[in-house]
Amino acid sequence: MEFYIPTRVYQESDAVKNHGKEIAALGRKALIVTGKSSSAKNGSLADVKAALEDNNTEYTVFDRIEENPSIAAVMEAAEIGRSEGADFVIGIGGGSPMDAAKAIALMIQNRDSSEDILYTDIKLKALPVVEVPTTCGTGSEVTPYAILTRKELKTKQSIRHRIFPEIACVDAKYIKNAPQSIIINTAIDALGHFIESYFNLNATDYSKMLCLYGMKEWAKNLHVLRGENFGEKECNSLLFASTLAGMAISHTSTCVPHGLSYYLTYNKGVPHGKAVGYFLAGYMALVNQRIPNEADRIFKLLGFSDVKEFKEFIIACLGRPDINDEDATNMLNGIMENHGKLAVLPFVVTRMDIRYLITYIL
Amino acid sequence: MEFYIPTRVYQESDAVKNHGKEIAALGRKALIVTGKSSSAKNGSLADVKAALEDNNTEYTVFDRIEENPSIAAVMEAAEIGRSEGADFVIGIGGGSPMDAAKAIALMIQNRDSSEDILYTDIKLKALPVVEVPTTCGTGSEVTPYAILTRKELKTKQSIRHRIFPEIACVDAKYIKNAPQSIIINTAIDALGHFIESYFNLNATDYSKMLCLYGMKEWAKNLHVLRGENFGEKECNSLLFASTLAGMAISHTSTCVPHGLSYYLTYNKGVPHGKAVGYFLAGYMALVNQRIPNEADRIFKLLGFSDVKEFKEFIIACLGRPDINDEDATNMLNGIMENHGKLAVLPFVVTRMDIRYLITYIL
Repeated sequence: MEFYIPTRVYQESDAVKNHGKEIAALGRKALIVTGKSSSAKNGSLADVKAALEDNNTEYTVFDRIEENPSIAAVMEAAEIGRSEGADFVIGIGGGSPMDAAKAIALMIQNRDSSEDILYTDIKLKALPVVEVPTTCGTGSEVTPYAILTRKELKTKQSIRHRIFPEIACVDAKYIKNAPQSIIINTAIDALGHFIESYFNLNATDYSKMLCLYGMKEWAKNLHVLRGENFGEKECNSLLFASTLAGMAISHTSTCVPHGLSYYLTYNKGVPHGKAVGYFLAGYMALVNQRIPNEADRIFKLLGFSDVKEFKEFIIACLGRPDINDEDATNMLNGIMENHGKLAVLPFVVTRMDIRYLITYIL
Repeated sequence: MEFYIPTRVYQESDAVKNHGKEIAALGRKALIVTGKSSSAKNGSLADVKAALEDNNTEYTVFDRIEENPSIAAVMEAAEIGRSEGADFVIGIGGGSPMDAAKAIALMIQNRDSSEDILYTDIKLKALPVVEVPTTCGTGSEVTPYAILTRKELKTKQSIRHRIFPEIACVDAKYIKNAPQSIIINTAIDALGHFIESYFNLNATDYSKMLCLYGMKEWAKNLHVLRGENFGEKECNSLLFASTLAGMAISHTSTCVPHGLSYYLTYNKGVPHGKAVGYFLAGYMALVNQRIPNEADRIFKLLGFSDVKEFKEFIIACLGRPDINDEDATNMLNGIMENHGKLAVLPFVVTRMDIRYLITYIL
């Protein structure tokens, strides 16, 4: 088994400011990669700019990363980074800007290459990347993954290169004023990472440690997901949990629920965490059939008595999905051809099993 | 709080062979650093040589690292490494060769420097280091520390530079035939890492995760420490635990028991793990006075009902130490001046408290 998380993680108040010198030391000019508005609102963008200015380091901002970033956006940002002479990249936001930052860092480093290199098997290097998460779900700040929308395949898929961020600055103040729906959706994404990493053929003692400890931490915040008020304490806890979940999937990858989610996101615009969440109860129902003791252990750890209570919790958090027969069939056909996601299932499944998983929430 | 463990850890059967290509890719010529005989006996040295040969990489062997390595040995090995053109270093053995390998890698990289640089505050780089542990205690394969004997100070002390190994190859087959006394002494060292890291001012949620999960793993092997037979399963478990303990102290450092141990090792030749172990019951007795609930949690986790049972276990494992009044006073005076170790205590202590800690085992 392997353990490998080379990212230096700082989780603390004012992490960006406290470690500005170290961030600035990564290069001469940063390309800051973020979305349209949230990083400006929550103060993270201003903190990063200030940290660079305080350390006499130039930067250019690319703030046009959309949710579920396209390869076109990555190529556009990389072109700007190249022409501006950026030699490191800082991603600020949820999974979309953080993932895009890695792909952009790859494309700037490999300056004469076409977008085709994103999905080749040749190992390529990238510029150093810093990540500043502003949601509590993706874990992208400690994963080597960069999930992009592949329009030609009508789905989302990680690039083939493993790009671990150099530094992750995790600060609860950026999420404490986020809409509760964002907190819920992204926290459910982290739950998906735990469940899909724990019940995964690639799971090791290391990844299980991250999952077991992380799920216990995550479950301290069930009240937040049930709509109750929350503050910095809960934000810190959810961020810690989501970073642990990111470390876990860095070792195992995700599994069938993530694979299924991409259809809903691509075709129906369902936010990522929500789309994953719709399949977690079904996944656990399947686990519960096959390895009931193990399923039971995880239900207890998360604070649920059984799979029914878990399902009700998910529905209370996310509502029920809009999945018709055609969608279900499309998803089923899609995932049965997604050998990567099927191969990491910890037990053999039939097409019937996967249909059961998909429709369990309906 | 920070999390940073950049080492790539492989724990598996035939780890060296399986990852020989990656090891060889670190340079053109390796300096293999090991002790006189154990790595030759347990097969680890042969495995490393074979992995390098299979990948057409040259090497030189320096097999004169003694227990508690001296600066002189480090300088001698570095001189050989320089003259042989070594550009990476592989440490094989217990903590002594693994720690020495890091210091040697530093001295080869900084070729025109005197030994004075080992203990300066200027940050210096080292050649890449690979570590192959053959005991289950030190955790040096994932720590940035390199403890050397400082004859001028009559003690042991880590060099000031933080040198994380690039790769750690952890394979139970190298320890399964080790004398049980070595297994016990080194496993007690790992226990010290857990206890001193958990009850430590620098402890974070990350380091506590490593300690809590690791102690539970460690405690599966109490029967081995009680002298019962053991096999590859126990060796794997103890190695996993000791690597987790190494990751924990990488974040917190060790505390008073390690600080005290150096006196016994330097002046009385007591093996490192044993010397640490003599002060663990005293440390826990002090913790038990100050934060009884927390102490109780750890006793339960380790499989003991209280501090008395823990003390009896330590005595059963190690016997009682030969510490006379003069030793106790010397140790007390020494540790009261060791501001680094006192500063990480999670509570304020008096000289009386430390005397109680030292003499608790007698």
